[in-house]
Amino acid sequence: MSEKIYRDSVHNIIRLKTDSSAGKLLVRLIDTAEFQRLRRIKQLGLALFAYQAAEHSRFTHSLGALHLATRTLDKLKSSYAISDETQIAVRCAALLHDIGHGAFSHVIETILDFHHEHFTIEAVLSDETEVGQVLREFSADLPENVAAIVRGDFRPMALAQLVSSQLDVDRMDYLLRDSLMTGAKYGIYDVEWIIKSLEIDEENDRLYVAARGIYAVEDYLQARYYMFRQVYFHRTLRSAEAILKSLLRRALNLFADGKPVWFAAGTPFEKILKGERLSLPEHLALDDSDVMFHIKQWQRSEDVILSDLSKRFLNRRLFKIFDLDMPEPERQEFLEAAKKTVERAGFDASYYFIEDSAGDVPYYFYTKERSEPKNMIYVEEGFSRPQIKEISEVSAAVRGLQKGFQIHRVCFPPELKSEIAKLYHRK
Amino acid sequence: MSEKIYRDSVHNIIRLKTDSSAGKLLVRLIDTAEFQRLRRIKQLGLALFAYQAAEHSRFTHSLGALHLATRTLDKLKSSYAISDETQIAVRCAALLHDIGHGAFSHVIETILDFHHEHFTIEAVLSDETEVGQVLREFSADLPENVAAIVRGDFRPMALAQLVSSQLDVDRMDYLLRDSLMTGAKYGIYDVEWIIKSLEIDEENDRLYVAARGIYAVEDYLQARYYMFRQVYFHRTLRSAEAILKSLLRRALNLFADGKPVWFAAGTPFEKILKGERLSLPEHLALDDSDVMFHIKQWQRSEDVILSDLSKRFLNRRLFKIFDLDMPEPERQEFLEAAKKTVERAGFDASYYFIEDSAGDVPYYFYTKERSEPKNMIYVEEGFSRPQIKEISEVSAAVRGLQKGFQIHRVCFPPELKSEIAKLYHRK
Amino acid sequence: MSEKIYRDSVHNIIRLKTDSSAGKLLVRLIDTAEFQRLRRIKQLGLALFAYQAAEHSRFTHSLGALHLATRTLDKLKSSYAISDETQIAVRCAALLHDIGHGAFSHVIETILDFHHEHFTIEAVLSDETEVGQVLREFSADLPENVAAIVRGDFRPMALAQLVSSQLDVDRMDYLLRDSLMTGAKYGIYDVEWIIKSLEIDEENDRLYVAARGIYAVEDYLQARYYMFRQVYFHRTLRSAEAILKSLLRRALNLFADGKPVWFAAGTPFEKILKGERLSLPEHLALDDSDVMFHIKQWQRSEDVILSDLSKRFLNRRLFKIFDLDMPEPERQEFLEAAKKTVERAGFDASYYFIEDSAGDVPYYFYTKERSEPKNMIYVEEGFSRPQIKEISEVSAAVRGLQKGFQIHRVCFPPELKSEIAKLYHRK
Amino acid sequence: MSEKIYRDSVHNIIRLKTDSSAGKLLVRLIDTAEFQRLRRIKQLGLALFAYQAAEHSRFTHSLGALHLATRTLDKLKSSYAISDETQIAVRCAALLHDIGHGAFSHVIETILDFHHEHFTIEAVLSDETEVGQVLREFSADLPENVAAIVRGDFRPMALAQLVSSQLDVDRMDYLLRDSLMTGAKYGIYDVEWIIKSLEIDEENDRLYVAARGIYAVEDYLQARYYMFRQVYFHRTLRSAEAILKSLLRRALNLFADGKPVWFAAGTPFEKILKGERLSLPEHLALDDSDVMFHIKQWQRSEDVILSDLSKRFLNRRLFKIFDLDMPEPERQEFLEAAKKTVERAGFDASYYFIEDSAGDVPYYFYTKERSEPKNMIYVEEGFSRPQIKEISEVSAAVRGLQKGFQIHRVCFPPELKSEIAKLYHRK
Repeated sequence: MSEKIYRDSVHNIIRLKTDSSAGKLLVRLIDTAEFQRLRRIKQLGLALFAYQAAEHSRFTHSLGALHLATRTLDKLKSSYAISDETQIAVRCAALLHDIGHGAFSHVIETILDFHHEHFTIEAVLSDETEVGQVLREFSADLPENVAAIVRGDFRPMALAQLVSSQLDVDRMDYLLRDSLMTGAKYGIYDVEWIIKSLEIDEENDRLYVAARGIYAVEDYLQARYYMFRQVYFHRTLRSAEAILKSLLRRALNLFADGKPVWFAAGTPFEKILKGERLSLPEHLALDDSDVMFHIKQWQRSEDVILSDLSKRFLNRRLFKIFDLDMPEPERQEFLEAAKKTVERAGFDASYYFIEDSAGDVPYYFYTKERSEPKNMIYVEEGFSRPQIKEISEVSAAVRGLQKGFQIHRVCFPPELKSEIAKLYHRK
Repeated sequence: MSEKIYRDSVHNIIRLKTDSSAGKLLVRLIDTAEFQRLRRIKQLGLALFAYQAAEHSRFTHSLGALHLATRTLDKLKSSYAISDETQIAVRCAALLHDIGHGAFSHVIETILDFHHEHFTIEAVLSDETEVGQVLREFSADLPENVAAIVRGDFRPMALAQLVSSQLDVDRMDYLLRDSLMTGAKYGIYDVEWIIKSLEIDEENDRLYVAARGIYAVEDYLQARYYMFRQVYFHRTLRSAEAILKSLLRRALNLFADGKPVWFAAGTPFEKILKGERLSLPEHLALDDSDVMFHIKQWQRSEDVILSDLSKRFLNRRLFKIFDLDMPEPERQEFLEAAKKTVERAGFDASYYFIEDSAGDVPYYFYTKERSEPKNMIYVEEGFSRPQIKEISEVSAAVRGLQKGFQIHRVCFPPELKSEIAKLYHRK
Repeated sequence: MSEKIYRDSVHNIIRLKTDSSAGKLLVRLIDTAEFQRLRRIKQLGLALFAYQAAEHSRFTHSLGALHLATRTLDKLKSSYAISDETQIAVRCAALLHDIGHGAFSHVIETILDFHHEHFTIEAVLSDETEVGQVLREFSADLPENVAAIVRGDFRPMALAQLVSSQLDVDRMDYLLRDSLMTGAKYGIYDVEWIIKSLEIDEENDRLYVAARGIYAVEDYLQARYYMFRQVYFHRTLRSAEAILKSLLRRALNLFADGKPVWFAAGTPFEKILKGERLSLPEHLALDDSDVMFHIKQWQRSEDVILSDLSKRFLNRRLFKIFDLDMPEPERQEFLEAAKKTVERAGFDASYYFIEDSAGDVPYYFYTKERSEPKNMIYVEEGFSRPQIKEISEVSAAVRGLQKGFQIHRVCFPPELKSEIAKLYHRK
Repeated sequence: MSEKIYRDSVHNIIRLKTDSSAGKLLVRLIDTAEFQRLRRIKQLGLALFAYQAAEHSRFTHSLGALHLATRTLDKLKSSYAISDETQIAVRCAALLHDIGHGAFSHVIETILDFHHEHFTIEAVLSDETEVGQVLREFSADLPENVAAIVRGDFRPMALAQLVSSQLDVDRMDYLLRDSLMTGAKYGIYDVEWIIKSLEIDEENDRLYVAARGIYAVEDYLQARYYMFRQVYFHRTLRSAEAILKSLLRRALNLFADGKPVWFAAGTPFEKILKGERLSLPEHLALDDSDVMFHIKQWQRSEDVILSDLSKRFLNRRLFKIFDLDMPEPERQEFLEAAKKTVERAGFDASYYFIEDSAGDVPYYFYTKERSEPKNMIYVEEGFSRPQIKEISEVSAAVRGLQKGFQIHRVCFPPELKSEIAKLYHRK
């Protein structure tokens, strides 16, 4: 049999032709230690506390992104000349785009202050990783080409946009996959029509969407908006992340203060506690099981706060979370009164009273101003006199998404819910 | 067994408890001649020419609407007092809301100038229909209650809104059903979350959506927008409708001119050709098979136009259709030149050159101004100080949909495509 | 755009490359009058009376069969040399295998005594049909090749088996499609694994299933068994067919006796009533709408029986149906007593008391003895010493299906249900 | 809001009414530490190495089993008197039936020689577990009732069979769930029809399936058969289990020999390595993350075998696996020759040459002889003279499954594949 089949809940069947050198390369990449590690990192981190069935890993998502890249290239190459080298680089980048992700990425990146993309690029270029070796064996230029796509400075840019832009196979796959697995239907859009509508503007080296595809792209952007609102920024998920942050901060603080904190000696966790940067191999040695295992041990910590937060996290005794949607002076008033309530109840507010602001700036779903050309979405407008334009010039629906939204919430122990609710709803 | 099960592709299983009087009533209504007739009327008329699998009937849609009404009532009655009488009226109205529909409704209503809602109300109130008899047997008030819901003057208004408003079980079912059957994914939204979020504002007698449900409703309204753009106003569908209109007009004109047109004597089609109004029983005697059967006979008409249009329709040799999206003076110029091309080729432009303007006014998806309160969607805004407002006051996304859109296209025989395309794309 | 996309509820997307001559040919075949006619013939005839959503047509099924043929050929041609000519013939045959089907096939074939396969072959070979013309234009041999595949005497036989054997794309598609549309889950099996496992035994010119695929094929054969039991032989469906047969027989008998029966003069229905054989064009002029239209007129017949049966059929007032599963002497006794009850109530038993025996012989799902080699399923047995064998030699599960089953039931007016039930259940 | 909604990929929405005491109890049980732990145990263990998307946990499966129990009880209680006490016990048992499961159950139970059911019963009865406390708080008898259902000695037996028999909600859920998540379609059957067909034989205190349901049950049993063949006994899965067993045995042996093996001191893993029995709290403290974390550390073991096997396991460098399907004398010959090859290559055969025999006895899918009455499936046979019988007396298809099947395979390092394949396929 000259193909390898991966069953997939989103795309049904993902095929890799193993009688071609590209197919063999991709199978070898999938079989590297670094890629297999993605099986041990959940795609949506703590979202399963809100949507219990969202238990899927970055492994299946990455295969899905590869599949969409392959399909889109198949579509494009029937009309445009695309070198084999470029095709292979694009498919590898689609497969490997998440290889640098760590466990519970969004939380841990914030606390340890790094960006997974940095590790993805390092992993691809490294001599030490299996991924790097497999790529290099295939062709000397391939690691750099893949890294360039991830970084965003690959040329032709049009093809790099397939893997890294506002309309790329990463987003295209995760919206569908997260919709299916959570059971929320917000992220479903017409992926077939989008693929069918993608074209290359060869003159300006950019991808664009043919006029017939514009509604499908609008719907896709709105799908993304609603997935953020209803899934990625779900109260329960944010509350779980707040607890995880608090408990990791507590462990770091205890360690810094010379207090006992359990860790597996000689593992990357030791360096994390010591506040040292992880090397690439150390970063790639970590996955969800390390974090879980340490938190499980911390349940038995002598430190009441670390022990308590660890138990809350493992047993899903999450913080209660309120939206701070009242007018400004009242908001401050409420926050102060609520904080006092928390402290009066004997909780250390720095771990038990957490404001959640989604980065303190509004989240922009799409803006022309804030994007480089390589991230923008271009569409053809009109049938009789078609012209290629940036999508927000053409679509009122997309302009509507440019305002983004401000998330401002506060988390606290559910034991105090009724007391704090009185402050919250009071006239 | 005390329940009746209807398998459904959208809702999986639709159950009717047959050990309750309401359940028995609904089963009896389903088994009336008028309701069984809906099996012979396709939900989407000619959409199957664009989306081949959209072959479903109004029968399955009506059962789906009933199912959503039942589920929503179950949700609401756990919090609000709703009389049995009202519940039964709402469920009957959900089931019967399409009973007055005719074959290829949108086309035939335009040509014969009637509105199916009129026939729905008549059918419900009539002594002659089985539906009317079954309702009256159950309770003397029921026919009038059901009619009032369809008309929109039932009280309590909140419950009537379930069946007849901008957010009713009719729309809720058809978006999901048409999405599934066409395979286009535009109409999928989170129906569970909407049902869970529906509440009654008892003071003002209206339905509203709790604050947590607003994004689900926004997504639902956008789903509707994209289904119109991509399915209901699909070029191929509109082109098929243009042909159907042309051929029906031709038959009427021939008949009016005393020319031979085949018809089954003594059937409602005779009256249609004679230009007479159909009585309720006559209207309810017609379904898709009558229209198809007559068109099949018209293939052999001596009249070249009627025969030709009938063959095009049956064999899906549809008109080519171009969007008139060029600036105004050019548009007129193009239309004149194209029309001349059509006529020069020997076609009668009044049947073979059809402008399609979706009612000549923009289609409004949602506006406060144009709606009566009973059709509006109300939502709760805010968590700390919740208030009930009309949705467009709260949601920028919904305001974005208020502009609606203008469809302006022209249809002509595909034989002339390349010639007319030259006029269309010319600089 | 160099492909044509058909959205499909089973296969999601069916693609035809229109930049190849084969792709263009297939699109032209789909656009013939004869193929478009399949939109007007329901795949499962009256099954929608039992499973309301089974409203799909032979059109979508035929496209599905083509799709599976294309995919299987793609798989096979990576390992075996298959001439372009053979590939095209196989794909055309997969697409056109149902082209000779009439409305409500199983019922009408029984009454008028013909077999649709005969018309399929005629349609393919004819000079008069569009299908025949398109095939012939493509290549002089193509019509005969397609006909040979349908007849079963094409060589290489291995490829013909794809379209016409116990494991062909026709069955493979309809099991999945009918499962999905009815909502019954019996016909679902692992189609991907079967395609992946298909191989050609070049020495003996036959298709076979690699050893890893045997369980998938067993499951497929059992899927078929249960679809017959639960869907195709469903009581409600058989009862509807019994009424349709009775009413058609009544119309034929009335006409033979010189009694008035409505028919559209000059249409094939006239010839049917006169008992004359239909020519190919006449047969191809008929579809579901003709049958429905005539039955609708017959509601108003002066003949009470024809009128009554027509109404029962249209309004789904079906016969009650009992399984004759009691021991033999009691069965005869019951049948006689029940028949008397029917007659005593004033019904003509020859139309209102119908025994239903599924052809009077057990239905064989699979037997070696009754099949020609071309219809058999061959599988490879064993991994260490693989050998190709006929499947029932290898699989106890398949041997279990060889006994088939006997259907024996009786249908009568539901008005008599309680009276006849007493005879049925009596000690 | 008086209900709690769990989104589910199989059942769509799982509802718990939180305005009833039973609903509140179930939500409290779900929120216990022991139940939340099931999120950290994969339902199918290592199956994701064969079917990459099978990443779901025992948590979602347990909720699914509860949902089916609730639905079946709803069906049954419309016809039979079932005490509230019994209903609650059945629902709790359905929810908690897997609470005693450990990580990678089948493998670890074999090696440590225990049965998870034992821990389930202990956990339910214990004073120390949250689950036990919540049950006891609800009613003093509830823990014992739930335990009795799991053990199989609860009365009425008919209701206990819902949770623990050959046709119970556990199997009913996992077939559907594992089918969906693996993407293999073998486990799909008509669950709605089975629920609809379940009845209670009050005289003999047993559940039975009404005559109309027999084909659905046959199909369910066959679904189970094929899921075992194609998923649960998949070569890749068995090979991964062989490696896991080898590496755990190696760690135990090293420890017993006083060699260094990493472990987290003070955790249950220490006791496991010491060969001591785990107490209930220790058992319940373990989940997948503990096993993974230890294996990750073992990669760096000084012991070459432990280190090598751990890397193979984590990076999915699985053993090659061959079916021993040749005749007996050849089989021994082959095994000896292959073992020599493995040893000659420098591998310790006791860890690198593993025979896999699925318990050394055939797996019985269903036999009357081997089952107690409480596990058997009873069905009604016949319509005119219905009788309740054990299913294998009625169904030839079920008798066909009684032979079971013998799995006999051998696993070895893939490096030796071509060499051993020569021995395997030699004439």
